[in-house]
Amino acid sequence: MKKKIKKINAAILIIGNEILSGRTQDKNIAFLTNWLNLNCGISVNEVRIIPDEEKIIVKNILTLSKKFNYVFTTGGIGPTHDDITAQSISKAFKVKYEYHREAYAILEKYYGKEKFNDGRKKMAKMPKGAKLIYNPSSAAPGFITKNVLSLPGVPSILNSMIENCKKYLDKGSKVHSKTINIYTVESNISEKLGLIQKKYKKFVEIGSYPFFRLGKIGVAIVTRSNSLSKLRSVNKELIKFIKSKKIKILNI
Amino acid sequence: MKKKIKKINAAILIIGNEILSGRTQDKNIAFLTNWLNLNCGISVNEVRIIPDEEKIIVKNILTLSKKFNYVFTTGGIGPTHDDITAQSISKAFKVKYEYHREAYAILEKYYGKEKFNDGRKKMAKMPKGAKLIYNPSSAAPGFITKNVLSLPGVPSILNSMIENCKKYLDKGSKVHSKTINIYTVESNISEKLGLIQKKYKKFVEIGSYPFFRLGKIGVAIVTRSNSLSKLRSVNKELIKFIKSKKIKILNI
Repeated sequence: MKKKIKKINAAILIIGNEILSGRTQDKNIAFLTNWLNLNCGISVNEVRIIPDEEKIIVKNILTLSKKFNYVFTTGGIGPTHDDITAQSISKAFKVKYEYHREAYAILEKYYGKEKFNDGRKKMAKMPKGAKLIYNPSSAAPGFITKNVLSLPGVPSILNSMIENCKKYLDKGSKVHSKTINIYTVESNISEKLGLIQKKYKKFVEIGSYPFFRLGKIGVAIVTRSNSLSKLRSVNKELIKFIKSKKIKILNI
Repeated sequence: MKKKIKKINAAILIIGNEILSGRTQDKNIAFLTNWLNLNCGISVNEVRIIPDEEKIIVKNILTLSKKFNYVFTTGGIGPTHDDITAQSISKAFKVKYEYHREAYAILEKYYGKEKFNDGRKKMAKMPKGAKLIYNPSSAAPGFITKNVLSLPGVPSILNSMIENCKKYLDKGSKVHSKTINIYTVESNISEKLGLIQKKYKKFVEIGSYPFFRLGKIGVAIVTRSNSLSKLRSVNKELIKFIKSKKIKILNI
């Protein structure tokens, strides 16, 4: 019996001048793509990094939410003037930007009534109808609006919230992957690699990535597929070829 | 005498399944944005990460090259089947994809006539009319086609080539920047920060970024401007405000 393959995809929209200026090294892309792949069978097909500008955020939300099953935004949901993700998503979807009753209650409890100032209240304002993504580390919740999940930019906080996204996500078929690391240069194996890729075009994606390790040059051959048996066949062919070329294999 | 401000912008297009799958942590975005900012006065206004698929590369090259002064692509210029940046740019600009005579000579010399196989020859194929970006570390050149500069994905090789991009770039006015690190939470300063940003809206961009250091929570207030005097005025106001709130400043 053949299992039907279910493909679910997503885009990531990083909102933040600090990434575009080079001030901050992004860490959320690798974390999110890995987590979505491994835990939900969701492939990230596009990432965009854009500035904190309303018009640009609105346009990208509209484009990406139409094109992909899910959009994950990071950044811009804090208390300061440059945090405009929630209001921009409201504009994009033409819904009210208003206090979310539960988010308001969570934040009021966290800060205490007296210290619950306007900046803090701002974090309870969301697109009307948004559902909360709870935040176990610093209270201020993320939220999901249609197919757009909004998370904070600070990696440690984002990481702490990610499990709370799961219930909103439809899961796709698992993508299996295998890496063979070998000591050679890409141009030594590129022709045969191309032929094998051609043969398995529909089922397996073969990637080739050079690396430098302890002063030696190598190549990581990464194969990815929804089908474990097809993945095994490709890797059998790859290993046969590598051995025939007498190239040193670091791992199988 | 007032100096006229010259704004030059760029986009970065990261081409590579390995970044989208989460296998590889990107290092090129932070390096490129920093280098362009500091050395050329060029602001990166958008970054996109896309898969190794011709149609998608073509579309993004066309969109971004119209929208920005420069586009930097990284990845996909090696010898393997998944390296399709050059042929995709040729398609985007409707020019021939052919051997670049000088690139061919450089690579033939580097590998030696006998070992100059098809994979290696592929790296000399470029969009007709492209100019070379020399590669001091592994010979295979990058290239510029119209306003699109194509660099490799391996960070160490990209870094070694970056100075060779300079001669193709028009320089913009320097963006000055200053960071004040303070021990507080964002929501404690957000209101006043918003007011100051409003006042200097046209001249200075104020960003606010939480950090965690040695178990303490802090905020980095980053100001950026083409005008050094406006930057100084904003920072004077910021420091006056921070001191009035008796917040500890880590640096000025």
